[in-house]
Amino acid sequence: MSGTGDHSLARGLTPGEGVPFDDRGLAYGDGLFETVLVRDGVPQLWERHLGRLARVAAALGFPLPERETLEALPARAGEGLAVLKLVLTRGSGGRGYLAPEAPEPRLRWQVLPFSPDPARWWQGVAVRHCRLRLAVQPALAGLKHLNRLENVLARGEWRDPEVAEGLLCDAEGRLVEATCMNVFWWSDGGWQTPRLEGCGVAGTLREALLARGGIREVTAGPEVLDRVEALCLGNSVQGLWPVTRLDDTEGRPLARWTPTERHRTLQAEAHGLLGYPLQPDD
Amino acid sequence: MSGTGDHSLARGLTPGEGVPFDDRGLAYGDGLFETVLVRDGVPQLWERHLGRLARVAAALGFPLPERETLEALPARAGEGLAVLKLVLTRGSGGRGYLAPEAPEPRLRWQVLPFSPDPARWWQGVAVRHCRLRLAVQPALAGLKHLNRLENVLARGEWRDPEVAEGLLCDAEGRLVEATCMNVFWWSDGGWQTPRLEGCGVAGTLREALLARGGIREVTAGPEVLDRVEALCLGNSVQGLWPVTRLDDTEGRPLARWTPTERHRTLQAEAHGLLGYPLQPDD
Repeated sequence: MSGTGDHSLARGLTPGEGVPFDDRGLAYGDGLFETVLVRDGVPQLWERHLGRLARVAAALGFPLPERETLEALPARAGEGLAVLKLVLTRGSGGRGYLAPEAPEPRLRWQVLPFSPDPARWWQGVAVRHCRLRLAVQPALAGLKHLNRLENVLARGEWRDPEVAEGLLCDAEGRLVEATCMNVFWWSDGGWQTPRLEGCGVAGTLREALLARGGIREVTAGPEVLDRVEALCLGNSVQGLWPVTRLDDTEGRPLARWTPTERHRTLQAEAHGLLGYPLQPDD
Repeated sequence: MSGTGDHSLARGLTPGEGVPFDDRGLAYGDGLFETVLVRDGVPQLWERHLGRLARVAAALGFPLPERETLEALPARAGEGLAVLKLVLTRGSGGRGYLAPEAPEPRLRWQVLPFSPDPARWWQGVAVRHCRLRLAVQPALAGLKHLNRLENVLARGEWRDPEVAEGLLCDAEGRLVEATCMNVFWWSDGGWQTPRLEGCGVAGTLREALLARGGIREVTAGPEVLDRVEALCLGNSVQGLWPVTRLDDTEGRPLARWTPTERHRTLQAEAHGLLGYPLQPDD
């Protein structure tokens, strides 16, 4: 099931292998990554993952691997549910921060078996606000690049396994995302999600849901959550979690919700995109 | 002369080697680095490098290698001038962004021969303003961590080898640093350098010069440079460069200077700290 290091692709790929000392992904976080849900060898939201990968590489200014090289990877996952993690760095070379004129990107990947937690789908999760504020950097906003220290620091703010995620605001106090998920809430008669113009990662599930219509991108502070009818978190690996409790930065409860039909509707839409069950009995 | 991969230290160190796929330095930039000038096996500003390394590890929340492990590295450089690059990551493990409770940091290092460019010391350099604005993130300000995409993007703004460096302002328009050097200017009867409370790397040469007194940390916009008597860039590997021409973000000259006794005084102080010549004839 685990495809780490078991096979080599054509063209010198070394799956699950590491990178040399002078790799710019290690030296500077000069690269990108994708984590893809794969069911029986079939990648979910694959076109959106490939599209984002291409956008990030273009924004950082390096070429993509051949499409067929990428296309060959999900099949390596074999039967069952797995996560394919791709890391694409600018490769080696250049002089310090100056990138080589003709970079030769380095692709690494690993497949790990994956089991989602159905309790989080059907009973919901507790989340908290993080103290850390995301810095505003429009040049990197939305991109799933390898500079993720802010996410690591934010995720380090709690260890209670009962708290599933932490919500992040930016330096100007706008709600952005959770540490590894996007945020959706029902308010003013519709679903809303933060605009990601200054920071945050534009998740592929978020993208796919936005493309179906019915979700509005908005600018809002965290106080908006105190009065929303429903709050959910989602990403393309875990699916969609209803939030049943929101704590402040000190872990004191701010709000509670019971999962309702409102949550179930968005969840069914998300899970339909990912091949996850649409309701508890499925 | 190159110490890459030639020797192994005790305790399983693998010099110049890369890192595995699941190293958090590669995955998230979850680590730090130092580049140390080494002359005949003797590291320059060593205590300041070790001090910063310890501060960054503490800020990120992982333990240091044994002092003797670090102490043993510079001697590997042998005779002559070299640069020792250390990379210390949080190691492997954890669950996604969540770090392991007891991280086992991974130390990697490489020694490369180094030759500074005396023309840059004695004739000075041209620099330009970068378009990219550094994001403001007080939690990471001053730290030499592995999230350096902003520096890579800024350094990608020009390829003209006549332009030695690019100056960076933060999102609020304050002058911060150059892409890999700190900035010093003479104005109002004294040397000044930007405060680094929101972003930037606190260089060890800058620190050592500040510790000697006579340099003031200030908050200033880039327009301050139009009227300064002298402008210099410096770091602990290259030494100190007088700036003789400053271009705007489009490469049009904004200001010119001739190196004077003013530059030479700061340069001599910096070079004294690094063992570099104090004047052209030395």
